[in-house]
Amino acid sequence: MVVLAVDIGGTKFAAGLVGADGEMLLSDRVPTPPGGDADTLWKALAALVDGVAARASQPLIGVGIGSGGPMTWPDGFVSPLNMPGWRDFPLVDRLAERFPGIPVRIHNDAVAVAVAEHWRGAGHGTANMLGMVVSTGVGGGLILGGHLIDGGTGNAGHIGHIIVEPEGPACGCGGRGCLEAVARGPRLAQWALAQGWQPGSSEASKPLYVEAATASGRQLAFDAAAGDAVALAAMRRAGRAIGLALASATHLCDLDLVTIGGGLSQAGPLIFDPLEETLRAHARMDFARRVRVVPAALGQDAGLIGAAAFILQADRYWAG
Amino acid sequence: MVVLAVDIGGTKFAAGLVGADGEMLLSDRVPTPPGGDADTLWKALAALVDGVAARASQPLIGVGIGSGGPMTWPDGFVSPLNMPGWRDFPLVDRLAERFPGIPVRIHNDAVAVAVAEHWRGAGHGTANMLGMVVSTGVGGGLILGGHLIDGGTGNAGHIGHIIVEPEGPACGCGGRGCLEAVARGPRLAQWALAQGWQPGSSEASKPLYVEAATASGRQLAFDAAAGDAVALAAMRRAGRAIGLALASATHLCDLDLVTIGGGLSQAGPLIFDPLEETLRAHARMDFARRVRVVPAALGQDAGLIGAAAFILQADRYWAG
Repeated sequence: MVVLAVDIGGTKFAAGLVGADGEMLLSDRVPTPPGGDADTLWKALAALVDGVAARASQPLIGVGIGSGGPMTWPDGFVSPLNMPGWRDFPLVDRLAERFPGIPVRIHNDAVAVAVAEHWRGAGHGTANMLGMVVSTGVGGGLILGGHLIDGGTGNAGHIGHIIVEPEGPACGCGGRGCLEAVARGPRLAQWALAQGWQPGSSEASKPLYVEAATASGRQLAFDAAAGDAVALAAMRRAGRAIGLALASATHLCDLDLVTIGGGLSQAGPLIFDPLEETLRAHARMDFARRVRVVPAALGQDAGLIGAAAFILQADRYWAG
Repeated sequence: MVVLAVDIGGTKFAAGLVGADGEMLLSDRVPTPPGGDADTLWKALAALVDGVAARASQPLIGVGIGSGGPMTWPDGFVSPLNMPGWRDFPLVDRLAERFPGIPVRIHNDAVAVAVAEHWRGAGHGTANMLGMVVSTGVGGGLILGGHLIDGGTGNAGHIGHIIVEPEGPACGCGGRGCLEAVARGPRLAQWALAQGWQPGSSEASKPLYVEAATASGRQLAFDAAAGDAVALAAMRRAGRAIGLALASATHLCDLDLVTIGGGLSQAGPLIFDPLEETLRAHARMDFARRVRVVPAALGQDAGLIGAAAFILQADRYWAG
């Protein structure tokens, strides 16, 4: 019993074979062709999945996909924000043609990560959790009562658009003051630059020096770890915003657990400490005090493992 | 097939008989004994439910309860905020002793209202909705994928504790800036008084004149309807706060519909217009623009009908 799992991101395509218990049997990845048109992107993906599928020693029982959004769901016409070449691209249909006779199922990439953390990672054994990714975007997936929550159009889990500063910065979604508008890596770096941050100015972070224009959340986390005051303030700003969003989410959904992965989460206590402080100040009722916030346990394979779960654990994770 | 439904509130106890399709066959109510101790409260309730049950022409198949919280769930030890005489009172056990051999099921009163609106009211036919009550408190219940969401301890649906002003007023929950801390009727009236509101000063509202110390959200809504500028500002303040909370909830849960009931919601466009304006400004993604906000359709029997649904529609509304 083997599933072909696919992870569609703005910087890389990944594919792998996943066994019945969620074990990664093998995987491969290629850079996303930068600026590629629809056909260029598809050819790169097709070559990748063909190569991986050819190495399967058992018949494939399905194809699971996690992809950057937005997309129509469950039919899977994708328009990933960072991939202008695909607009309403029929990704599920194309993969169904290539792998006929088996189910092809898709969800948002952050949803796939949340599912993986619930099935095999830090959320194993809990029934009510939010799996969160804090990186160049802020996304998530919601598992309640032991089952993945889809919402009306497959878009449940958009924790990045909980409002944390009603009059705050404009968000890429068109709104204002969303968690993502404050805490996504590039925006946080932009905020720090405006406060006088000089990327890589601390001794320890010089090896990672980047131009200010491309200063990233990763660089910022590195400078914060090296003691840079503005970078530290930026980590507190992100941690506080995440803490507020999680207090709201916990009150609405009575969560047991939140898992946080993604590049920015690797700042560790620099971000988790102010997060906890803010969350605990706002989540005071007994039921809300129960919630635990932990780092995600799975690494970069999480997206593939979660995508496979749409096939292998369909009773819990697939209602499409 | 008849269910005994019970609604436990700070100002009244209600009980009724509900038929298989959610029709109210009969109901009765008594004022909650003010300041009553545990036994006084129980005797008043027991007399009420005995009287109603005695009028059933068919055997009861179960007892459904909606009660003010907090409570332990599903075992039903209740500690209603406005009823100090009951702290960890074993309400489910007591009713189970009185009505042996049939299930006795409880949930928060706002959850019962949400379930009623989904089953028989404004949410009929939708799969993903939040049913909300805006009154002396702000509560709700969450239905996703066509099923009532309980969360880890039966407390999902606490929309009143979504944070809408991070540095805002202290909330009864111990936190700060919660929707309830801004928009519950008494707090809104308090805000208006601080802004110079003189309750009942408009000609039209004189019949409802109340002392400032007991000025209510109802009085405020009445003065707003009569054109009082401060009362109107208070309605906008509440509408804006609700709109922010609903944008966050819609993003997290991909809702199709929100129903709003309770006293303050009867202010109509004075509250719904600023609510819509704020919600639409913040909920910009395609999936979030779908959400509709409508007044609740059921009246004061909603709590009883929803409580009955825990028995009559257990496949959708009872996982306890």
